[in-house]
Amino acid sequence: MPGTRPGMTLETFMSASVSPLAPKHVPDMPPVAGVRLATAQAGIRYKNRTDVLLALFDAGTTVAGVFTKSKCPSAPVEWCRAMLKSGKARALVVNSGNANAFTGKTGRAATKLTAEITAKAVKCKTNEIFLASTGVIGEPLDARKFAPVMGQLAERAQPNEFFEAAKAIMTTDTFPKVATATAKIGKTTVTINGIAKGAGMIAPDMATMLSFVFTDAAISAPALQALLKEGVADTFNAVTIDGDTSTSDSLMMFATGQAPDCPRISRASDPRLKAFKKAMLAVLANLSEQVARDGEGARKLVEIVVEGAASKASARKIAMAIANSPLVKTAIAGEDANWGRVVMAVGKAGEPADRDKLSIWFGGIRVAHKGARDPSYNEAKVSAEMKKPEIFLKVALGMGKGSDRVLTCDLTKEYVAINGDYRS
Amino acid sequence: MPGTRPGMTLETFMSASVSPLAPKHVPDMPPVAGVRLATAQAGIRYKNRTDVLLALFDAGTTVAGVFTKSKCPSAPVEWCRAMLKSGKARALVVNSGNANAFTGKTGRAATKLTAEITAKAVKCKTNEIFLASTGVIGEPLDARKFAPVMGQLAERAQPNEFFEAAKAIMTTDTFPKVATATAKIGKTTVTINGIAKGAGMIAPDMATMLSFVFTDAAISAPALQALLKEGVADTFNAVTIDGDTSTSDSLMMFATGQAPDCPRISRASDPRLKAFKKAMLAVLANLSEQVARDGEGARKLVEIVVEGAASKASARKIAMAIANSPLVKTAIAGEDANWGRVVMAVGKAGEPADRDKLSIWFGGIRVAHKGARDPSYNEAKVSAEMKKPEIFLKVALGMGKGSDRVLTCDLTKEYVAINGDYRS
Repeated sequence: MPGTRPGMTLETFMSASVSPLAPKHVPDMPPVAGVRLATAQAGIRYKNRTDVLLALFDAGTTVAGVFTKSKCPSAPVEWCRAMLKSGKARALVVNSGNANAFTGKTGRAATKLTAEITAKAVKCKTNEIFLASTGVIGEPLDARKFAPVMGQLAERAQPNEFFEAAKAIMTTDTFPKVATATAKIGKTTVTINGIAKGAGMIAPDMATMLSFVFTDAAISAPALQALLKEGVADTFNAVTIDGDTSTSDSLMMFATGQAPDCPRISRASDPRLKAFKKAMLAVLANLSEQVARDGEGARKLVEIVVEGAASKASARKIAMAIANSPLVKTAIAGEDANWGRVVMAVGKAGEPADRDKLSIWFGGIRVAHKGARDPSYNEAKVSAEMKKPEIFLKVALGMGKGSDRVLTCDLTKEYVAINGDYRS
Repeated sequence: MPGTRPGMTLETFMSASVSPLAPKHVPDMPPVAGVRLATAQAGIRYKNRTDVLLALFDAGTTVAGVFTKSKCPSAPVEWCRAMLKSGKARALVVNSGNANAFTGKTGRAATKLTAEITAKAVKCKTNEIFLASTGVIGEPLDARKFAPVMGQLAERAQPNEFFEAAKAIMTTDTFPKVATATAKIGKTTVTINGIAKGAGMIAPDMATMLSFVFTDAAISAPALQALLKEGVADTFNAVTIDGDTSTSDSLMMFATGQAPDCPRISRASDPRLKAFKKAMLAVLANLSEQVARDGEGARKLVEIVVEGAASKASARKIAMAIANSPLVKTAIAGEDANWGRVVMAVGKAGEPADRDKLSIWFGGIRVAHKGARDPSYNEAKVSAEMKKPEIFLKVALGMGKGSDRVLTCDLTKEYVAINGDYRS
């Protein structure tokens, strides 16, 4: 990553309970022309920490978004889906502490009120305002709490607040998640900054995946939407913590067009976007990997590669079946190269597979081959591999040319503790 | 259940580590005419406990079976599927300690050798012998170990050994699972006995679902197969522990036709089977509930009812999404009536649902109604309900008339401990 501050580790910012899988270095987040940010303590739920983020965008900013596939989405998700039609954005408001999900009519009223408060402070239309909420489900969100802080947020907003922004949207995350990259479009260098939060997938007091990406490139809303949809497939959609899907999952991208002399791009297929696409993918991949690294209770980051499947879609289904198997995840937590459970997960995926063609690797060591334990299986070597914090698990099916990769984490007693405690 | 021995609790048989959800009483298992059983210590893996079961059937016994949908089934599953074509059975051999799964050619050779050893001892054809194995995956099963014990097993086999049979097939089960019922076919009373093992879904040292049902009714193999397939849909197929599917899951039913003067039934639709179907369903439901009660680390039995779905299939998918959600299961372990996570699970099932029509009950108390927290929500009342060992969770969707019911258990730190320990 560009902008890494050598020696500045996350421990500088966070408590001792930071995930052991947290990235060692946090990048300096450069400004993005046309984006200003501010955070505040609105007292939604937490004490003594910021819980509301306002991002302001210059006129002409385009917006794209992808959201949870849940059939019971939160009120802010429904709001954003409706507002996306115009493709224009002037502000983003994100709060932590309350997800405004399963709140019925009250929830819809809360999104409307939040947008009205913001539109007044920012001096724009309500349909240019995007919203996201994360935190408790089913509790009414008192949007009136935004009124006293919104005016000063709009006044205080500054370009260099990306790291503070990432902190304000955290729930059970153990570290803030930021990523940045640059790319050339024509002769202009544009910046892409992203922030994210994750942890588990959802729950009162718990997590949801939210991510926001900001660029000063000039890209039309339909092109931005196409880029984002393509970009998410092998990044955020290829990460799973516990197989549970939030009612609030949201990824939005804002393009201000404020990079000096930046070419205006109207189609996603424009060849001038080649470097931009690559940089955007790097940001999305980086953020989504950080989400996996901060899975609730996670002690191991697990990369699962499936090769030789009937198709990429088939490889994805098999990789996800492995990634979401409680028995595979607990085995990895126990540092056990339990390939029998991997076979089980391959088998239950329901995709074309043939036991007698199956090979399995842990950390580059082949443990199973053609339907049986590898003849050269060496328990000591494999055990050493399993003690590492990052586990690479590969499955070769021998059925075709489809391959795919997903990221997950292990399933530990801490996950059960985090999610099994009484609601406070 | 008929034949319960009052005062005879499971603690009489088992160690202190028996699941707190174990049935309070164990039924006396009557003989089934035409079935004889014996168990022995073959030393497959365990010491000082029985690990092989031989069931002998009189000539004329028909057989039916349903097996794992895994694309990587174990060698015994493949053997049984092939042997089912004849529809005739003279013997069943079940071992614990080794699943003979993912063992390639060696595994196929082991099933063949087991059948040959048994055919010699029993004096029948190898294609009348059915096999099941449970235990470690990926380790070769040394079928030669059956040779020294098979002759004496065949000689010792007796009608009153059903409880011992259930003990011999256990792996991480904390109690043996038996059930029995009787029914009239015409003027004849027939008996249906079943045994099962469960615990988790699969793993080296771990579990698999196996169940065997025996009756002295006279039912053709095709009719028996139809009955079993129908019977499994709302019993064994409506139970989930961790969403993981074993490579070895097997349910077989044997009908000896030895009940005195029993009418010969050739079609599953025969009206004379009405009482038999009901009794068979009771046995399957009882056994499958015991599997849920003995889920690895389980401290709560969870009954999930989904009503008002678009169809029964839709209700099943939603019920299973709830039952397999780690966040719902950990909440129940924490005695938290966390209906937000239930909404999440309904949403992620991908079936028709409308947040604003959704109602949720825990233990008969409505906690959420029409898209928001129930106005009369009383935390104390609900908390008391959540402390019970049996949790009833109901979801009404308001979409249609489809309903379904599944059983599961909670997800505890003990599950992670059982499945996260090093392979020994």
